Amino acid sequence: MENFQYFTPTKVVFGKKTELQTGTLIQEYGCKKVMVHYGSGSVKKSGLLERICKSLEEAGIAYITLGGVVPNPHLSLVYKGIELCKKEGVDFILAVGGGSVIDSAKAIGYGVTNPGDVWDFYEKKGSPKACLPIGVVLTIAAAGSEMSNSSVITKEEGGIKRGCNSDLARPRFAVMNPELTMTLPEYQTMSGCVDIMMHTIERYLNRADNMELTDGISEHLLCTVMKNAKILLHHPENYNARAEVMWAGSLSHNGLTGCGTDGGDWATHQIEHELGGMFDVAHGAGLAAVWGSWARYVVSEGTERFARLAVRVLGVSETGSDMEKALKGIEAMEEFFRSVNMPISLGQLGIKPTEEQMREMAEKCTFWGQRTIGCVKTLAQEDVYQIYRKAAL
Amino acid sequence: MENFQYFTPTKVVFGKKTELQTGTLIQEYGCKKVMVHYGSGSVKKSGLLERICKSLEEAGIAYITLGGVVPNPHLSLVYKGIELCKKEGVDFILAVGGGSVIDSAKAIGYGVTNPGDVWDFYEKKGSPKACLPIGVVLTIAAAGSEMSNSSVITKEEGGIKRGCNSDLARPRFAVMNPELTMTLPEYQTMSGCVDIMMHTIERYLNRADNMELTDGISEHLLCTVMKNAKILLHHPENYNARAEVMWAGSLSHNGLTGCGTDGGDWATHQIEHELGGMFDVAHGAGLAAVWGSWARYVVSEGTERFARLAVRVLGVSETGSDMEKALKGIEAMEEFFRSVNMPISLGQLGIKPTEEQMREMAEKCTFWGQRTIGCVKTLAQEDVYQIYRKAAL
Repeated sequence: MENFQYFTPTKVVFGKKTELQTGTLIQEYGCKKVMVHYGSGSVKKSGLLERICKSLEEAGIAYITLGGVVPNPHLSLVYKGIELCKKEGVDFILAVGGGSVIDSAKAIGYGVTNPGDVWDFYEKKGSPKACLPIGVVLTIAAAGSEMSNSSVITKEEGGIKRGCNSDLARPRFAVMNPELTMTLPEYQTMSGCVDIMMHTIERYLNRADNMELTDGISEHLLCTVMKNAKILLHHPENYNARAEVMWAGSLSHNGLTGCGTDGGDWATHQIEHELGGMFDVAHGAGLAAVWGSWARYVVSEGTERFARLAVRVLGVSETGSDMEKALKGIEAMEEFFRSVNMPISLGQLGIKPTEEQMREMAEKCTFWGQRTIGCVKTLAQEDVYQIYRKAAL
Repeated sequence: MENFQYFTPTKVVFGKKTELQTGTLIQEYGCKKVMVHYGSGSVKKSGLLERICKSLEEAGIAYITLGGVVPNPHLSLVYKGIELCKKEGVDFILAVGGGSVIDSAKAIGYGVTNPGDVWDFYEKKGSPKACLPIGVVLTIAAAGSEMSNSSVITKEEGGIKRGCNSDLARPRFAVMNPELTMTLPEYQTMSGCVDIMMHTIERYLNRADNMELTDGISEHLLCTVMKNAKILLHHPENYNARAEVMWAGSLSHNGLTGCGTDGGDWATHQIEHELGGMFDVAHGAGLAAVWGSWARYVVSEGTERFARLAVRVLGVSETGSDMEKALKGIEAMEEFFRSVNMPISLGQLGIKPTEEQMREMAEKCTFWGQRTIGCVKTLAQEDVYQIYRKAAL
């Protein structure tokens, strides 16, 4: 197995009514002014924002607010947030929302504390040296950003979606009340479940001599998410199912499911990022739409791991060759996506990219041919284009 | 399921030769003087201490050393360490060893930064308000103290073993090179495996409506430790097996296997602590020696969980009543202990407490009747005495 680092400093406060502890939690960091960052008006309508602001006031903490984060969060709002924080002397950002809001908060946190253009970090032209401390009240189980070191931002000009990873941005605390996710539309809940699964599958499908302990944790996590996604399809207010999925979301992307691996594949994520950047699709749904096409394109290289996934997670029988099991597993995964109303093609995702657009996405995805992606099979620009084409059929 | 907090800020640096990074890791904390704390001469003989000191010197870090920690670490050395740290202006403790050394370091860390007698925290007469930052180079996979909030110290006068739990003492980093554990005597390796298993079993056997995700992680962790303990019996230098056990040791006691539970039972630990205090036995071996007697004493109250453990972890067939499965599971666990040369009675542990001594341990264990222990079945002084008696048969 590979050497690894594991670093998850985020204090998780999990369960019913935990959002009422937000003020007390922030007090521990001795900050002067908080920016409460959020997305659409739904956190206002639900009364959540009011409850949180009240908790801050009761703890004697000064704050300002900045809403308007959209899915595939925009660089323009990040710039606005940086300016606002500097002007107001903000020294702590509280993200109230899902991955987009948290990722936007991380980007703002970098921008406030580092010189130069924050987008440079996302273009890999440098690494951040600091970040404002960030706290989270989570309202969507999906991205795992509440414990992860990752932030993904979209530059509207050109529709370019890029990520920046740094331990500096791992949130100080994450308040996780599964009840807050009960009112999500089904599509968003299921898209979240796919995103959670993919964070583990990206790590699980790799070329290393893997760690047994990590493999088993990953397999159980995937089974748990699949089982509970199906429950939520019919019982969206089932607290236990919401809780299982929410906690799986954090564990799936905090590093636990990657311990001892070579880091994982991540090509599906890279391929989807271009879809998100160009067509603004829901991230998890986008992952579901391309995963099967990616999997069939690379399965000849990582057959044994695909076969293991098929048997341990997807209910495929032990009999047959590794390739037979692997292919049955890919089918079974797509069958699962269908069963929770997730797309398994670009058409089902609701987009019809032209030949030219697919060429453009493949170009951007490989930084105009400057990088390859993936580790199960190394993919160059032409490979990525072929995967888009297959997903479009 | 229950609300929970999960807080594991320790940066884990895991794998071959990682001890060479120690100096660089400590640099991050900007400390002025380190105390290197260790146990017997074995870390000297093996050259580990020298490698670590060299790494500190290369990083320009001043240090002093304090060795002599014994299993069931003594309060007297803690007092000595506190005095030494104060005199020398130590602001960081590096524990090089297993649970005993780390626990001793935590106690010294409390003593240096809090007024009054540090033993008071172990007697539950108050809570520490601070702790010196602690780093770890782990040499024994067992106690999980490298990521846990726990410290257990023995007051030699009266042989009283007591624990103090506080997040303040969670180590800042843990260097974990499985190679460092390869030369441990078999008895210590297997005792470590039992200790690791018990940290999860104590949490697993409880009265809550448990979290599926946590249950599956716990079951897989237990299976992984059992499988790899058997490998290490014949191949003590198997790197992968050492690594699986070492990582399981951290995950088993950092809180992960308790998420969503009611906190767990912990009676077996409390019962063993008195054995350790009075007879200075190896902790894991002591746990193995009393577990079966405890389990049969309480199984009528937590039958369903015992049955689940039996089927999911211990290979007991699904057929039969819960009580039948539960009892078969207890037998199977004892059979496993036997198979790795661990004791399942006090006699096999090598001690023969008198009636009076068993009465005395039961008294101490329940703070002279002032507390009960356990949650599967609440145990008072007389119950604890009965369990010692059964274990002595």
